[in-house]
Formats: sequence, structure tokens, C-alpha cells
Amino acid sequence: MSTKPTNDSVTLEWTDLDKRAVDTARVLAMDAVQKVGNGHPGTAMSLAPAAYLIWQKLLKHDPTDPDWAGRDRFVLSPGHTSMTLYTQLYLSGYGLTLDDLKSFRTWGSRTPGHPEHGHTAGVETTTGPLGQGIANAVGMAMAARYERGLFDPEAAEGASPFDHTIWAIVSDGDLEEGISSEASSLAGHQKLGNLVALYDDNHISIEGDTETAFSEDVLKRYEAYGWHTLRVEPLPNGDIDVEALYAALRAGQAETGRPTMIALRTTIAWPAPNAQNTAKSHGSALGADEIAATKKILGFDPELTFEVSDDVLAHARLVVDRGRAARAAWDERIAAWKKANPDRAETFARVSKRQLPTGWEKAIPAFEGGKAMATRKASGKVLEALGEVVPELWGGSADLAESNNTTIDESSSFLPAGNPLKSADPYGRTIHFGIREHAMGSTMNGIALHGGTRVYGGTFLVFSDYMRPAVRLAALMKLPVTYVWTHDSIGLGEDGPTHQPIEHAAALRAIPGLDVVRPADANEVAVAWRTILSHTDRPAGILLTRQDVPTFERDEHNSAEGTARGGYILAEASSGLPQIVLIGTGSEVQLAMQARETLEAEGIPTRVVSMPSVEWFNAQDQAYREHVIPPAVKARVSVEAGIALGWREIVGDAGKIVSLEHFGASADFKTLFAEFGITAEAVVTAARESLRAAGA
Amino acid sequence: MSTKPTNDSVTLEWTDLDKRAVDTARVLAMDAVQKVGNGHPGTAMSLAPAAYLIWQKLLKHDPTDPDWAGRDRFVLSPGHTSMTLYTQLYLSGYGLTLDDLKSFRTWGSRTPGHPEHGHTAGVETTTGPLGQGIANAVGMAMAARYERGLFDPEAAEGASPFDHTIWAIVSDGDLEEGISSEASSLAGHQKLGNLVALYDDNHISIEGDTETAFSEDVLKRYEAYGWHTLRVEPLPNGDIDVEALYAALRAGQAETGRPTMIALRTTIAWPAPNAQNTAKSHGSALGADEIAATKKILGFDPELTFEVSDDVLAHARLVVDRGRAARAAWDERIAAWKKANPDRAETFARVSKRQLPTGWEKAIPAFEGGKAMATRKASGKVLEALGEVVPELWGGSADLAESNNTTIDESSSFLPAGNPLKSADPYGRTIHFGIREHAMGSTMNGIALHGGTRVYGGTFLVFSDYMRPAVRLAALMKLPVTYVWTHDSIGLGEDGPTHQPIEHAAALRAIPGLDVVRPADANEVAVAWRTILSHTDRPAGILLTRQDVPTFERDEHNSAEGTARGGYILAEASSGLPQIVLIGTGSEVQLAMQARETLEAEGIPTRVVSMPSVEWFNAQDQAYREHVIPPAVKARVSVEAGIALGWREIVGDAGKIVSLEHFGASADFKTLFAEFGITAEAVVTAARESLRAAGA
Repeated sequence: MSTKPTNDSVTLEWTDLDKRAVDTARVLAMDAVQKVGNGHPGTAMSLAPAAYLIWQKLLKHDPTDPDWAGRDRFVLSPGHTSMTLYTQLYLSGYGLTLDDLKSFRTWGSRTPGHPEHGHTAGVETTTGPLGQGIANAVGMAMAARYERGLFDPEAAEGASPFDHTIWAIVSDGDLEEGISSEASSLAGHQKLGNLVALYDDNHISIEGDTETAFSEDVLKRYEAYGWHTLRVEPLPNGDIDVEALYAALRAGQAETGRPTMIALRTTIAWPAPNAQNTAKSHGSALGADEIAATKKILGFDPELTFEVSDDVLAHARLVVDRGRAARAAWDERIAAWKKANPDRAETFARVSKRQLPTGWEKAIPAFEGGKAMATRKASGKVLEALGEVVPELWGGSADLAESNNTTIDESSSFLPAGNPLKSADPYGRTIHFGIREHAMGSTMNGIALHGGTRVYGGTFLVFSDYMRPAVRLAALMKLPVTYVWTHDSIGLGEDGPTHQPIEHAAALRAIPGLDVVRPADANEVAVAWRTILSHTDRPAGILLTRQDVPTFERDEHNSAEGTARGGYILAEASSGLPQIVLIGTGSEVQLAMQARETLEAEGIPTRVVSMPSVEWFNAQDQAYREHVIPPAVKARVSVEAGIALGWREIVGDAGKIVSLEHFGASADFKTLFAEFGITAEAVVTAARESLRAAGA
Repeated sequence: MSTKPTNDSVTLEWTDLDKRAVDTARVLAMDAVQKVGNGHPGTAMSLAPAAYLIWQKLLKHDPTDPDWAGRDRFVLSPGHTSMTLYTQLYLSGYGLTLDDLKSFRTWGSRTPGHPEHGHTAGVETTTGPLGQGIANAVGMAMAARYERGLFDPEAAEGASPFDHTIWAIVSDGDLEEGISSEASSLAGHQKLGNLVALYDDNHISIEGDTETAFSEDVLKRYEAYGWHTLRVEPLPNGDIDVEALYAALRAGQAETGRPTMIALRTTIAWPAPNAQNTAKSHGSALGADEIAATKKILGFDPELTFEVSDDVLAHARLVVDRGRAARAAWDERIAAWKKANPDRAETFARVSKRQLPTGWEKAIPAFEGGKAMATRKASGKVLEALGEVVPELWGGSADLAESNNTTIDESSSFLPAGNPLKSADPYGRTIHFGIREHAMGSTMNGIALHGGTRVYGGTFLVFSDYMRPAVRLAALMKLPVTYVWTHDSIGLGEDGPTHQPIEHAAALRAIPGLDVVRPADANEVAVAWRTILSHTDRPAGILLTRQDVPTFERDEHNSAEGTARGGYILAEASSGLPQIVLIGTGSEVQLAMQARETLEAEGIPTRVVSMPSVEWFNAQDQAYREHVIPPAVKARVSVEAGIALGWREIVGDAGKIVSLEHFGASADFKTLFAEFGITAEAVVTAARESLRAAGA
């Protein structure tokens, strides 16, 4: 996969109008922050030449079609300098207007404080939480390679319509965050030659000089990761040397065997006479006087705000014509490719819309009742089966593949040419994320942002904490990625409290927009995967056991199809009208089933509800929900090997919750369940208490 | 602060008995894993020479007093190879018996799957979640320097009884995790010359060869961080070259200007004939045949298990005598120091017991009612005031000091000699963690583990997600560290949804053993800090507003002292007997107060409960809790600018919850509260609904 420069000329054309456009971006950034009274002007000013250079002279894009599949991608990892991006979107003609810039950081505007994907055209990813953007970019670069493998693997390097470049700007803050280390080490290992990152080396962070906390040799660190590194020195006046930067960016794009990191020394808030090179300019409006002084330096009228001259705008907007031309050329190439590859063209069209192949769900296995199987194992079988029919489904694990059962194809690892492993294939199916849960989450976001493939990633549930910021961003961006979180309770046994999730199911359910699914048996796993993959507008986590659990006899009990509705009646009360409802998730549903036997034997008509997904259940209409948990039946018990948090909402005042309110311990799982009172007996006792409380 | 070698001889004494002791550790590791049937034998076998070398020949320790303040610290970052540590604790005479090793990973044993601090004598920190250990070690090294500054700042390098070395073993997994990058970059910046880390470079991770995911040049990366780096090659037979390793460890200890990283090439599971150098040996028992074969190679009886010869044990246990001698020498030095520094000796004794100075709480300011002040600002004033009287209180921020109001002393930054900043002081008070929330959390754990100082660290509440794994470990280890989490709701305004916590208060309350405190006004902040610091057995997070909130008139309303009980009646119903109880936290308590005015005007006796800490409230006796929220009053409304999760437990079936169930937006905070319906009007409406539901 190539990322050869699209522009054949190596000489930069850089006119006075270009210079003026850059200064216009600086002025707009100052004015927009000043108008709203808060924001981050400094970096938007100093980086304006770099951003303009990329957007006007390097980025392959068509501002009239921000979703063009052939486009380069641009990621602004330091999202706080959103004006860096908004000014270029405005100058390039993405539909953002001067009024939009004037309403920066205000209610309903298209220019929120941090760039939000799906909210503003041309914003490829939501950034702000530092380090996420560069990791997203790594994911995009991985996706570009995988997609090329799906659609055009035989093409010579640089010859495919699926070849393009991922550009990223990163800041000190991004590089201090551990997630950037994880993702950058992975990018080096993966030899992502289609990735070019520009490091804004401005020596300033919020607490002042980076000497407060950050003195490492960044380029040496990136060399250690296997990146191609370059340094660009500033002009004597402190501004960016545009010619030198252009040469470096071109060199980065031309290097297709490794990712590139370019360190660009900048002066924050340049050329503001007093604010430049200060931490204050990072996060505060400059003030009217300083802005006026800066405008004078730049040759702008200090009395005017949001001053954009027509010739500057017209000049910058020429990028639309260039973009359309590039697009037209690409359209011809893709048409030729489609003609030559009709089947792949169909797949491309389908994947682009995130439509799964017709009949895909028929491949999902059904599991025989009456046996015992860990739900992680069932999940592995579902993935293997889906692997045969859904080529856009790929993923892996953060070095726990064998434990997570996430290997979709053992013979095909996503690893670059030259990797010594036998399974290595640049277009391989199984991703080895390494022991990097956070980067896994964030590169998965990048993969979903880049195109229509469906990616999953596995680790132990307890380590969902390591990737939580990325999970939150997936939910915020509504990205259809799937987390395979196994070893989902004290049921993992001997590894002990550091590895046993207690609060995690509840804490994940807390994230708005994330589906948390904890199937009770193998057949619920099958329906859960089917349901998860049928959604294209949200992330989901599937919580799976290490230990075996019974595969319920579905002839005796209700179908696992109810999984798709989040909660369903697994076993009805003998009378048909329950006196008590027992509600369980995952491995604890079997305890509810055992408790039901005891209670029924005592003459208490008992219903068991399996509730694999509270989110899916809450999305059902009231009639269904009240059918499953009748309002009139106040005696209710929930059982889950985790904290009680959240269950009161479902069981009500008279309900009882069988839960675990403390950390686990190292022992075999049967001992742990018994010692910690997560047992059928505990459910029976709770049921009796709830019946009393309900006055039933 | 020096970490000069304590052993003057540079020549290693290494007898056949030492060799035999190492092989005994290997055999015990194999046998213990085999007996329980699961665990991680491979690394415990290959690392045995390194661990034995450190524990017997380098570590300054007294096995008869694991809490000796003058001891070196040893951190095993890859906690899964816990047998590496347990075998040395056994051989060194820490009280761990052969029976303890035989009950490895079983219920109630002193040898759980991963080492647990506070559970097994000699375990300095709980490890298992990868990357945490090395970050803990960095924190310990920081604490050693800060404590030296408190107690013995004038001593020449290496001459103080407070000088010692922090030793750490790290694995591939530790180095892949981003937290290790954050902590290691910080350690380099801080020039922590008292830290020596040994990297077990075995080229194997769970998914197989590290070529799956990890090919960076680790030592080059550490050079980039400013570390001293060394490499130790193996013997031709694949075993560790003990002489060369000893020289390297000594060189690391002698290097006092920088932390040291030693890459040690090892062969996992050496010398097992078939299992060595395989991923399987990492996480699975070797099996009886392989163990027998290995025992033969090592000259042990393949028929025996847990074979320890008396002479080997006696030889290893000589470390007790050496430890006692070192301890006695230290006792003399510390006695001399005490005599020369009676005041400091008193402080040392006090801090060692985590006792705060007499009358410390009197320094905490009271705030005038009727004004408005952001709670973060009040917190800053409390910290500044406490700074004057509590020298062991120190901390900082992950590069948000000005926003978090966490600077306890602006003139004194914890930064090494040679740092160009004016405030730099190796013993400085204010920690600049950098944009590294995760490392902040984990180094705070290391600081609390090392000694009795009280550390706090700040960031935005939303970024508590970045440090969550470290927070969980603080709770698991019961460490008294304090998180200052400001910008605690949509009240932060323009930065938008990436920065606005929605689910975080609930998700943090989910962590067992963590106190979450969200004060309503400046005086609640004061009591909250006092209460938090009075606890020495748990971490706490204090959630603070960016925006101003009213400082309540305590003459009119009840005292903020109620904060210490978690929840209290702030404003009583006019009748004394409420018809409805409104419960709020933080900035939303003012909404409850406003709603109370409306409801009272309508003739509804309304009580307002401020509930800064659900954990503290739940710790009160039932009588108090029912006094605050009478069971008979079923009409209840909670209001918090976050998700509802958890509040049903408090408001009950008839209660109503004013909450926010979706992500925020970028706008000024007043607009956000109004648009999202977190208003006094919404509380009034909810109150009317709850009154109806309660049939009141």
C-alpha cells in the first residue's frame, strides 16, 4: 500500500495570497476566541501555516464531498485548537461560514469547543481528550491497509484508488499521554507507511514551559518505535518555515515503509507581541489590545473583526476546483477498477454502507442444549463462523487472544511485509494489538471512522478500565465497534482481585450510548452477536465467562431469541402468573434457574427473566417490558456477580439484590461463588425476603 | 539524594549453594503451579537468578521487619509471575512457609495469584494489571526524595539514613502499556537516580513471539526519556549471566543522576527442555513429564515435589543476619540523626504513623456566606492554608494546576537539580505530573506505599477515566490518596461533550472502597478536605465545580459540619416535618434550595438534604440516615447534573430523579443547564410528580 505524493511537483507554490490566507486564519482564531471570551487561540495562530499548507497543498480532498472514500484523512489530535481546523474548513469551502466561526463555542453552533465528528462536515474524528487523535489516525492507517486488501490487494504500490495518506497533527499533550505511546509503538510495528504525523513542538503546556514535566527526546523515542523522523527548524523570526515543512511533509508521504513523525518547532501565539510563547495564550483569549497589536503586525485593520478579503477567500477556495479534479480522476480510476472487479465492487458498495452480506446471519451456529460451554468459547465459535461469510469483520485482542477466543482466522495475522511470523499478512484478518488496551480501543475507533469494516477487540473485562476513554469516545461518536470482554466476574477464579471485575458491568452501563451485553449461555451469545452486528450506530461490549455455564434446553424453556430484546422470560412460572420474578445476567442466570426449582417446589410460582442487556430491554416498548416484569409483581430478585448499582431501578423498593459489594479473592471460582454468597440459596433467601417485603 | 551501593565489594560471591537456591526457586515455581493446576511458571523459572541476586546480594532489607523505613523497595511489575516474589520471600525468611507455597492461588492462602500488598508480608505493592508496578516504583522514588527533603535535606548524597534504592522488575507487557511510558518519561524528567529497573526481555507474550506486536527498541526509548541504559546478554546455554547482571545492577545503583533500565535477555521457562521459549509456559502449568525432565536437568529428584534441602535454606536465610546487621547499623545512624534533629524526628515519627500535626484542622478556612465561589477555588484556598501546617501534604496536577487549583506552593516545584525553572527544587512541594493522568494515579499509589506523606493529584473529572485502573488499585490497597477532580459537570461549559463528565460520579461511586465527595459550597469543601485527610485507610475523590456556586448562609441553614456524615439536612421544612425531601449534590444543591422556596410558597413543607458523599452517608447508622431521609416520607427528588444511576436506591419507587442521560454540548453553562433541564423548575415539577406518586 502506497502513499505516494499525489502532487508531482516538489516545488511549493506559495504566493502572497497564501501568506495572507494563513494570517487570515490567525486573525479569525484570535477574533473567534475573543468574541466568546474563552478558548485556545495560541496554537491556532502558530499552527496556521502548517494547517493551511496541508489542507491546500497536500491533502487529497474534495470539500464538496467530505465522505469521498478516496480522500486523505486529517486528524487534529489536540482538539482544543479546534480553530486550527475550523479556519481551514472555512477557507477550503466545506460549508462552514464566517457566521459559524463567529458562533464558536456557543449553543447549537457548528463550531463547538472541540471538533465533533458527525456534527461538522470535514471533521474526521472527535478530539479533545489528548492522545486519542493520534491513536485514531493509527487505526485509520490500519483500516486503509485492510480495506485495500479487501478490495484491491494485487495493485502495485501507489496504483490503487484505495491508496491515500493519513495526516495527523499532534501536540506535547498527545505525546505525554500513554495512549500515544501504545499506538505509536503499534504503528511502528505495523510499518504504517501511509501515516504522516506533525508534532507541534512549542515547548508550552498549560502549566508553563514544558520543562515542568516533559523533557524527553521525542524524535529519538519515535526512532525507537521504528518511525521515520524529521525535524523542521523555524524561521529566524519564529514563524514556521513553510518551504522546509513542505519538503518534510512530502518526504513523509514518500516514505511508504514506515510512519513518519516530523517535529516542527513553533512559537505559540506567534506573532502576538506579548502573548507569544506564553502558557496563557494556550487557553485564554488574548484581549482586545493584544489582538489589535497583532493585527497591526500582520497588516490587518485593528478596528475590524473577522476580516477576510475576497481575494484571499477566492484564492483559498480554488482548492475546491483542485479537489473536484482529483475526485474526477479518482472516479475514472474507480470506474475502471469496478469494471475489472465486479464482485469486489459489490462488496465495496455494501461495506461502504455497513450492510452485511445477504443471509450472513445464517452462518451463526446454534448450540445444543444440555451441555456446558463457557460463553467466551461460544463467542469464539460465532466469530469463526462469521469469518467465513463476513469478510469485513476483523479484530483481535490485546495479547489475550487465546483467553478471549477472538482469533477469527489463525492463519492470517494483520502484520506487515517482512514480519517473521508465518501467519503474517499485510492484509491479515487477526489483529495483534499487543498489551495495549487503550490503543486497541482508540485504533478501533479509527478503523470504524475510516470505512465500513466491522472491528472487534478483546481483553479481560477488568481491563475495560484501561480503555475506558476510548470506549466513551466510541459512544459519543456512535461508532459500531465491539468489545469482547471475557473473564467477566469472580468466575475467572485464581487470578484474584486485580483481575476480577466487580464494578465493571455497572460502570460500563453508565456510559451513555454503549450497549452492554452479558449473555447467559451459548445460544444467547449467538443472538447477541447477531444483534450487535445488526446495529451500525453504536458500540457494544459483550461480557463473557471464562468458566463453563450450562447451555439451556430451549425446548423446555423459551428461545434465546429474546436476547435481542435485552430481557425475556426464560422460564415461566408454573402457574403462568408469577408470584415472584428472578432476574439474572450471564453466569448467574443458572442460579436463578436453580432457585426457581426450589421456590416452585415450595409452591411459589416463579418466573426467571434473563436480562443480557439492560439497554436493549429499556429500548423496548412499555407493553413488552411490563409483560416481562409485571408492575403488579413487586417481589423481585436480581442476581449478578457484581455490585448492586443499577438493579434497584429494576427490582423496586420491595426487591432484593444478590450482589457483590467488595473486591474478589484468589481461589477457584466455585469456592469464590460459595464464599461470597452468589448462590442459588442466596437467591432463594432473597426471594423469601422480597416476598415478605412485597406483602405477597 | 544518593543511592550508592550499600555493599562495598564489587565482586559477587556466588557459591554452589546460591546456584542451588536459584534452582530451588525454579522447582518451587513449577511445583506450585502444577499443584493448583494453573498459573504462570515460565517467568518465575527464568527470572529466578535475577530475583535471588537482588534479594540476597543487593536489596537492603530486614526480613524480620518488612516495614523498616530504611529498607530498599522491590516492585515486581509483572504480578502474574508472583512465584518470582513468593519464592524469594520464602527463601529470605519473611515468614512465608513451604505450606504457603503449596497453597498457591487457593482460598485464604498467603500466596494469591497476584501479589497483594497488605496481605503478604514483604509485598510492597499489589501488581497484576500491567504497567502499574513500574509506575508505583516511580512514585516510590519520588516519595523517597520528598521524604528526604522533609527529614534530612542537608545530608550529603548517600549519607542520609533516608537514602535507599527502589528496585523494579518489568516485563514486555509493562513496557507496552501506556502507563509505563508516562511514568518512565516522568522519571527521566525527574532524574530519579534512586530507581533501578530490570527489563525481562524474553521475546514472549501470551499470543506468542513478541513479533506479534512489539518490536520497538526499548533501550533507545528509555535513552530518549533520559534514563541510563544497560544491556546484559545471556550465557551461551540460555541462562542468566549472574556476574554480568550483578555488575549492571551495581552500575545502576551507582548512577544517582538518572534512573537506570537494564535489558536482560532471558529464556522463559529455562531450562525446561520443551517448554522453554514458548508462550504456553507463560500461563500454563508445565505438566508432570516436563517438570520431571526439568528437575533431572537441574539435579533434583523428579519423584519429589517442593524439594528444598536444609543447607540451601540455611544458606539463603543468612540474609536475615545480614539484614539485621544492616538494620542495626541504620538504627545507629537514625539515632544520631534523631539526636541532631529532634523536631524533624518528631515529624518523622508522626508522618510514619500518618498522624497529622496537632491542631492542623484549625488552619482550614471558613468561608463567608452569601457570596459566590467555585468549589475548586475554595479547595485551592484550603490546600494553601493546609500547606502552611501540614508539611507532608504535597501534590499537583496533570498539567491543569491553574484550573484544578492544586498548587499548594507556587514557589516550590518538585523538580530535580538542574531544572531551569525558577521554582525548581528537588524537595519541592508542587508536583508537575505532566499530561499523564494514569501515571499520576499510579505514582500517587507509589508515594503512599513508600511512606506516610499525603499526596493529592488533580485533573478534570472527565479524565478520571484515564486514571481509573490506578484509582481501583488505590481502593484495593486502601491507600489514602486524594484526587482533585474539577470541572465536575456540564457546568464547565464551552469545552463541550469531550470534557463534560456525565457518567463519572456514578462510575466512580461504583468502585468499592473509594469515597466520592461532591461538596455543594465552599464550606462543604472545607469540611470535606478535613474529613478526607482524617481517613488513612482509603482513597477519596473530591469533585469540584469550575463555575461559581453560592456559599450558603449557615446562620439561616444548618452547618456544613454535616458534610462529614455524607448527607445532612441543609434546610429544614418550615413545618419541621417535611412532606417531601429534595436531595442534591454539588452545584445542584442550589437548585434544590430554589425549588424549596417555590414548594414552600405553595404550602408544601420541603426539606433539602445535601448529600456530598453517598459512601459517608451509607456509613452512618440507620437512625441517622432515617433522621435525614425519613422512611415515611416517600416523596423524594434527587438532583445531580449526571446520570440517574444509583439514585433510585435513595429516592425509592415514588421518588423522581432529575438527571442527565446523554452527553453534553459546547455552550455557556447557564444555557446548558437550562437546555438540558437541570433547573429549579425541573426539581419543582419532579417534586409534584413524586408527591403524586407517593400519594401524599
